[in-house]
Amino acid sequence: MSMERPGGSDPSRATLGGLGELEVLDRITRRLPAATSALLGPGDDAAVVAAPDGRFVTTTDLMVHGPDFRLAWSSGHDLGWKIAASNLADVAAMGAVPSGLLVGLAAPSATPVALLEAIADGLRDACAALAPGCGVVGGDLSASASLTLAVTAFGDLEGRAPVRRDGASAGQTVAVAGTLGRAALGLRLLFTEGVDAAGEPDARRAERLRAEHPAWIGAQLAPSPPIAAGRLAALAGATAMLDLSDGLALDARRLIRASGVGIDLDGVALSALAPDVADGLELALAGGEDHSLLAVLPDGAALPAGFVRIGRTLPGDALTVDGRPVDLSGWDPYAGWNGAAG
Amino acid sequence: MSMERPGGSDPSRATLGGLGELEVLDRITRRLPAATSALLGPGDDAAVVAAPDGRFVTTTDLMVHGPDFRLAWSSGHDLGWKIAASNLADVAAMGAVPSGLLVGLAAPSATPVALLEAIADGLRDACAALAPGCGVVGGDLSASASLTLAVTAFGDLEGRAPVRRDGASAGQTVAVAGTLGRAALGLRLLFTEGVDAAGEPDARRAERLRAEHPAWIGAQLAPSPPIAAGRLAALAGATAMLDLSDGLALDARRLIRASGVGIDLDGVALSALAPDVADGLELALAGGEDHSLLAVLPDGAALPAGFVRIGRTLPGDALTVDGRPVDLSGWDPYAGWNGAAG
Repeated sequence: MSMERPGGSDPSRATLGGLGELEVLDRITRRLPAATSALLGPGDDAAVVAAPDGRFVTTTDLMVHGPDFRLAWSSGHDLGWKIAASNLADVAAMGAVPSGLLVGLAAPSATPVALLEAIADGLRDACAALAPGCGVVGGDLSASASLTLAVTAFGDLEGRAPVRRDGASAGQTVAVAGTLGRAALGLRLLFTEGVDAAGEPDARRAERLRAEHPAWIGAQLAPSPPIAAGRLAALAGATAMLDLSDGLALDARRLIRASGVGIDLDGVALSALAPDVADGLELALAGGEDHSLLAVLPDGAALPAGFVRIGRTLPGDALTVDGRPVDLSGWDPYAGWNGAAG
Repeated sequence: MSMERPGGSDPSRATLGGLGELEVLDRITRRLPAATSALLGPGDDAAVVAAPDGRFVTTTDLMVHGPDFRLAWSSGHDLGWKIAASNLADVAAMGAVPSGLLVGLAAPSATPVALLEAIADGLRDACAALAPGCGVVGGDLSASASLTLAVTAFGDLEGRAPVRRDGASAGQTVAVAGTLGRAALGLRLLFTEGVDAAGEPDARRAERLRAEHPAWIGAQLAPSPPIAAGRLAALAGATAMLDLSDGLALDARRLIRASGVGIDLDGVALSALAPDVADGLELALAGGEDHSLLAVLPDGAALPAGFVRIGRTLPGDALTVDGRPVDLSGWDPYAGWNGAAG
């Protein structure tokens, strides 16, 4: 007798539509990490979160299948990890310590619940690895034709002023914590070698590629931004800081505009951080999604752990490398998007 | 000479893809209401929000085109209004005062920016009408094949304990603030009379329907939950409270399970609140999305403004109306969803 109801006796094949909202929520919730800051966690109309110094930092990010990821390339674990990591990096870029996440998830009715469980595991593992004590305080589950993750993160400033983008002045040290250009190189490899003959994302090729180039593909699919370094930069007196999500050149220009200073980058230091490929320096400047931290520190301040000096601030409003103007742009989510699924 | 570049000289026809992320963000941001709680608003990696009593309430909701709304029925203003209202109701249901929103928005590249501007206007007007002082502290913009809104709301408990679902005991008053069954009746009318001959959502018919039945269609497309009543219930000593998003019967059962009490509803009181249609009482019990507040108050407590008595708590775990068991279920986002666009 093996007339199996789809999603019936084999729990790994159960779908959202087959199980219903409450059962799916239950299965996900029990895998999620608790937050030490949660005074009241999931299960009521809203969560209650501690904000010990009377303020909290908060940021939100959406990731949508197609424009932001392809299921042929990213596992559920990767997705949960990446959306946690990118949100935690925004909290860290304010000099705050991540305290909690809210997770919104919308998925097609035919989505296997195992994929959602893997997303929950990725969220849990990213919190444990990058921001211990941070966990999920609540969320929402909805239906959509496109798998969509919407995460909100919270952070605690521990009594310090937030490190904004607009506090840098001339004559200070520009430093970075984390990788440069690796996530972009990983994405380029996926688009060139992780596809089939028709150019469609291919899971087997992507897996092989990841085994060959774990640092580059991993930086794209499951980045590990230096979350703890954000707090250290704030403690070291950082005058400005931001998360490198759209590429060093574009994000440095944001800091330049906000602070009213110029930045001269050190080509040797950049090259040392850049991926070891022919156009590594260009990738280090233009490549997005590393979620590294760009900080400006007072002249003479000791570099906090994890940071490398990559330049200095100057009077003016130019971005230069060894005195020569930089002409690269970053990444726009609408430019060049094609909605092909994967 | 009228060789117009699409989205060029006519700003109302400009699309997200044509304008690019930064210009779209700028156009939306300037329409959004500022929050009085925002110590640092949009424009940095994260916002900084005041949490005067060292805690904050937070909740998140996704709304996706297809399962959650149809653009043939809902204007952009409706969408912004509704997602603000439903999140504010979750904050109110904890007894908190809404302090801020984060808004994530993902849309197809061809979406007119005017639609996003209307969403922003709806968010602004809902905050002004339902929770003055609450505003938007930050957000995210992304691309998706399905228009998706992801809103996170924050609230201030003003030093009070949160009103959870599990504090009710037997012999207390069950009361509701807001409408019952109207949003469900509105949805049923839209599905039966707001469609064309092929059953597809039809904008002209929906508009006519709304003019004929503004209370019912309005409750579905742009509900006005009694946000201020949540704080009043907390001040009156409410022992349990929740937001009626999935229907009185289903949500009352949640309170029953959490608190370990039974609830007997008063048929006369329910009928007085129910829509004046043949199956009004059934709609009042089973219809979701009113976002009204269900509260349990100590015996003898004066009802806070906006609340109507609809029953009492009893020993046991049954939900009854005038002593007779209720057998209705609420709404599941995956059950019965068809992904047809509108």
